[in-house]
Amino acid sequence: MGTGEYEYEKPNYEKQPHKVAIPPPQPFFKSLGNTVKETFFPDDPLRQFKNQKPVRKCVLGVQYFFPIFDWAIRYNLSFFKSDVIAGITIASLAIPQGISYAKLANLPPILGLYSSFIPPLVYAMMGSSKDLAVGTVAVASLLTGSMLSAVVDPKENPTLYLHLAFMACFFAGVLQASLGILRLGFIVDFLSHATIVGFMGGAATVVILQQLKGILGLQHFTHGTDIVSVLRSVFSQTHQWRWESALLGVCFLFYLLVARYVSQKRPKLFWISAMAPLTSVILGSVLVYLTHAEKHGVQVIGELKKGLNPITIMDLSFGSQYLSTAIKTGIVTGVIALAEGIAVGRSFAMFKNYNIDGNKEMIAFGMMNIAGSCTSCYLTTGPFSRSAVNFNAGCKTAVSNIVMAIAVMITLLFLTPLFYYTPLVVLSSIIIAAMLGLINYEEAIHLWSLDKFDFVVCMSAYFGVVFGSVEIGLVIAVALSLLRVLLFVARPKTSVLGQIPDSMIYRSMDQYQNAKAVPGILILQIDAPIYFANSGYIRERISRWVDEEEDRLKCSGENSLQYVVLALSAVGNIDTSGITMLGEVKKLMERRGLKLVLANPGGEVIKKMNKGKLIEAIGQEWIYLTVGEAVGACNFMLHTYKKDENATSTGSSSGKETWSDNNV
Amino acid sequence: MGTGEYEYEKPNYEKQPHKVAIPPPQPFFKSLGNTVKETFFPDDPLRQFKNQKPVRKCVLGVQYFFPIFDWAIRYNLSFFKSDVIAGITIASLAIPQGISYAKLANLPPILGLYSSFIPPLVYAMMGSSKDLAVGTVAVASLLTGSMLSAVVDPKENPTLYLHLAFMACFFAGVLQASLGILRLGFIVDFLSHATIVGFMGGAATVVILQQLKGILGLQHFTHGTDIVSVLRSVFSQTHQWRWESALLGVCFLFYLLVARYVSQKRPKLFWISAMAPLTSVILGSVLVYLTHAEKHGVQVIGELKKGLNPITIMDLSFGSQYLSTAIKTGIVTGVIALAEGIAVGRSFAMFKNYNIDGNKEMIAFGMMNIAGSCTSCYLTTGPFSRSAVNFNAGCKTAVSNIVMAIAVMITLLFLTPLFYYTPLVVLSSIIIAAMLGLINYEEAIHLWSLDKFDFVVCMSAYFGVVFGSVEIGLVIAVALSLLRVLLFVARPKTSVLGQIPDSMIYRSMDQYQNAKAVPGILILQIDAPIYFANSGYIRERISRWVDEEEDRLKCSGENSLQYVVLALSAVGNIDTSGITMLGEVKKLMERRGLKLVLANPGGEVIKKMNKGKLIEAIGQEWIYLTVGEAVGACNFMLHTYKKDENATSTGSSSGKETWSDNNV
Repeated sequence: MGTGEYEYEKPNYEKQPHKVAIPPPQPFFKSLGNTVKETFFPDDPLRQFKNQKPVRKCVLGVQYFFPIFDWAIRYNLSFFKSDVIAGITIASLAIPQGISYAKLANLPPILGLYSSFIPPLVYAMMGSSKDLAVGTVAVASLLTGSMLSAVVDPKENPTLYLHLAFMACFFAGVLQASLGILRLGFIVDFLSHATIVGFMGGAATVVILQQLKGILGLQHFTHGTDIVSVLRSVFSQTHQWRWESALLGVCFLFYLLVARYVSQKRPKLFWISAMAPLTSVILGSVLVYLTHAEKHGVQVIGELKKGLNPITIMDLSFGSQYLSTAIKTGIVTGVIALAEGIAVGRSFAMFKNYNIDGNKEMIAFGMMNIAGSCTSCYLTTGPFSRSAVNFNAGCKTAVSNIVMAIAVMITLLFLTPLFYYTPLVVLSSIIIAAMLGLINYEEAIHLWSLDKFDFVVCMSAYFGVVFGSVEIGLVIAVALSLLRVLLFVARPKTSVLGQIPDSMIYRSMDQYQNAKAVPGILILQIDAPIYFANSGYIRERISRWVDEEEDRLKCSGENSLQYVVLALSAVGNIDTSGITMLGEVKKLMERRGLKLVLANPGGEVIKKMNKGKLIEAIGQEWIYLTVGEAVGACNFMLHTYKKDENATSTGSSSGKETWSDNNV
Repeated sequence: MGTGEYEYEKPNYEKQPHKVAIPPPQPFFKSLGNTVKETFFPDDPLRQFKNQKPVRKCVLGVQYFFPIFDWAIRYNLSFFKSDVIAGITIASLAIPQGISYAKLANLPPILGLYSSFIPPLVYAMMGSSKDLAVGTVAVASLLTGSMLSAVVDPKENPTLYLHLAFMACFFAGVLQASLGILRLGFIVDFLSHATIVGFMGGAATVVILQQLKGILGLQHFTHGTDIVSVLRSVFSQTHQWRWESALLGVCFLFYLLVARYVSQKRPKLFWISAMAPLTSVILGSVLVYLTHAEKHGVQVIGELKKGLNPITIMDLSFGSQYLSTAIKTGIVTGVIALAEGIAVGRSFAMFKNYNIDGNKEMIAFGMMNIAGSCTSCYLTTGPFSRSAVNFNAGCKTAVSNIVMAIAVMITLLFLTPLFYYTPLVVLSSIIIAAMLGLINYEEAIHLWSLDKFDFVVCMSAYFGVVFGSVEIGLVIAVALSLLRVLLFVARPKTSVLGQIPDSMIYRSMDQYQNAKAVPGILILQIDAPIYFANSGYIRERISRWVDEEEDRLKCSGENSLQYVVLALSAVGNIDTSGITMLGEVKKLMERRGLKLVLANPGGEVIKKMNKGKLIEAIGQEWIYLTVGEAVGACNFMLHTYKKDENATSTGSSSGKETWSDNNV
């Protein structure tokens, strides 16, 4: 590297060494196009279509919407072996989980099996994740149950309830697919990680509490999901507790937890944990069959209908008086399911280093739910537990979903009678074991250490769900997430910069304890884009910094303040209110006898300053490329001015004029 | 200035010249205190109380809430003279305007006078603006009218309607005072300037359309406020139009507009415009009295009750079935009134260079509306037109409000019979003339040239009000404002930096056409704080920049990419999702065989990176204070590595190792 590169550092204030450039104006439609592209197509999905022949474009288009045509041609036997093992493993988890979660949604248990048959097939065609295993999830099931039960009693009117569940699933699918097609996937990003942790943990707690009914073998139970109602309901009927049921439940829970612990310690033994639910179901069923425990207070599943999914497309009645309930349930559960599915897909893609297109995934989820709603399925997504097992079992492609679907199909066709004696308490144990994994207290501790506000958000969502209801928790979570964003925007950081010793670098004096203030010059940095929501605050804050600095100087008897340098490096964007605010700050400073100097305004800022005639107002010569140059110029003038004052003893001429007279 | 300051510029990569500092940890409660202070007390209102004796603190406290005790002691005769002139001037405007706006709210005209008597007195005690003139405003009156008329017919049940108006005013006051006391004034900032311009313009258009009833002397009129209903209503009864009324209206409108034009051209003649409404009222009344036009289709005000405001505190019934309507109306009109009042107060304070504490103003507005609701007043605030007249008339303090109140009091006590013959059409003309000033088309053009999205927001609010209703327009305006903020946050700018020739400065290549890319190194700048809402986007965008750069290099056959430098200067804040995202980017880059280098992480970023163990993951030695130093180090290693490769022909040793072996 030549030393010529450092030439500029010699202070040369006769002519400004580096001018702040105004980016060339862009035609309106080009800049509109860019904005639309960045907003809706940040991942540039059309990139691969560029410079291709029409036929190839068609092929790519089909492959885009049906990734199976992309990877199927490269599929081989070794992939198939892995996928079959993974598929059978997840099927063994899917069957008991499906039955359990269907009960959570107050739906017939068989729906859990139906939902593990058709949707995985659709996803295998359209999904872009290699590791996602499709199925129903506890939280969405619970939400479906609580929202639909509020208007229709599942026991009094089971058919209507069932149809509403299909309709909710249909609308969830429509919503998901539309979000994907309209490329609005980023809406899901507004659910922050902290709120999801809190919400999921709360929902898991609620689901566990609901299982007390099954574990204790209670016949009557509260309809509320909050901890107060549930515990009151449980402890008001202690005489109804069945020890047989409780004993069985605790034993199986212990077995499941031990199995999971072993698998966690030795990832190679993942199958112990994966097979544990099915083993529990088999053991439990055999035990009940042998001891006739169903006659001694242990409730069993009973008859499951044999046969594949009945077609239910005719049951979607859009003239129903409960249409709005179905739509509401669909929207809420659809978004929750989407958030979980996308997050799971992305996490595993990150592990294996491939890309997931969120919007494309949404279309896949949407189509699989629309198809599901027509074939006796309720809401499905990519559950974390099942996908993790799939990943650990070594799946290679979405073929593992197809294998799972075939295994479920065989079960539906031939094996349903085997579940007659399956005790409900085992299903409760399976749910509890799965849910305990969702209460991510470690992450909550991590949030506490990293960011207190995130922790508060997380806890609010948690307690909202546990003490209120799932819906209340969700509303709190979303509101807090939005409030968080708005607070971030409304109260950006501002800091005073000082000079790093032996350099021309200026940095925040809070962060760099060795940075030194420059006498007579206050250097302020605004650490965020300036919008209407924070421009008032920034104006107030700048005034306050100046007030404080003047007070400090007065107390210490130093020279008074002459220049205020605004470092705009971090102001990546600005709107009309921001430009107005800068103009006001300029006037405010002028009235206080201070000179406003700008350093490093970005492209967006200088462009709008130019259009708003602010460059002339502030003066081209008071806008510098770096803080160093701005301070250098101010310092130069401060010293020249002082020298001049000493020589002629006239203090009234302004620094500017003196400067031009003393061009040494 | 010594040259020693530029020493650092000599590249010296054996030891890192400038270390990125981690700000010293702050105790939890201190940092919480700081956050609370910045969020709720950004203007540091307690500053003046510091280091004062207890007695002095009490005095300051009283003066804080009742600024009158602060300025009254400095009040003198010359102030008084100016204030009397200003006060009488605004009273002459307040009386006809008050009567007109009360009719807009479907309230008895006398309420307009009542509302110009008590509230100004309260404001004079508690308000901190010297220029604000208190009174009712058109938009809030219209909103009150339309929201209350939807549930109670003002003609069928005038008493209930009146009580609801007082209750709405009471709740508006409670809301305003609470916002002030809870220091939540910044909520008003979320109504962007663009939406306010659009909303106000739309409301003014609607108000003007409503005046067609008065101008044309129609008896029946639509209840809708949208342009379609109004025009249909007007043109479906062309046979009912009264030419006498229309002629009178057009003449007075012409007179008012000419008066305003003259005043605008010559600010010294402000009184011509200020007196014009009262002159019109007098002229109109005399004309009607002489010609008995009230018997020829010109409607007149009729009898106004003599006497001061009746006490109405007993009429506030909180058990009413319409309580929710009153609360809703109070909230909506309260916020709108607040936004206008605060904006007006701030603008004039800016002119005269004094400070307005938004939260304190809100308390003053709130108290004046609570007091008003107990004394037969409906919602008041600081209208722009009246305050501008007050300012131009040379008011010095809030005494001008007291003078206006006394003038109105005299009118109420003795002069009300004089308004018997005042034709309604004159009031319509006064409203139209005032409203034309609110349609700020110049600002809309300015928005178009400055920021297209702001223009779209403005127009949406305008058309929402004009074609929908005031409420629809308001909802659109608020929703768009929020969407704007969220979009700003969700899609921050990222840009590629290049080297400014003959310097160590790196700037955006979009803005600086002469900046040059550095071979083998991609320098990316993230132009906004990183939050959960944009971390996913930023990750995608970084990948895409790398993709595009690699494609470009492949096409041009240049050396492949080795380093990705992330310039974090503009990342003023980061949350847990952001930290996770940085970790993911690091892994992504690693898998692509690229080295991630960070430049200038701010205090917040480096602190959280430290807590999140990200510094170790990325490597302390890959974090630099400036982009220049980061690029310098990368360049040094690229060249050393190349030399090394040429000398020994082993390309597999990593740059890092080579570097440490070649410490020249």
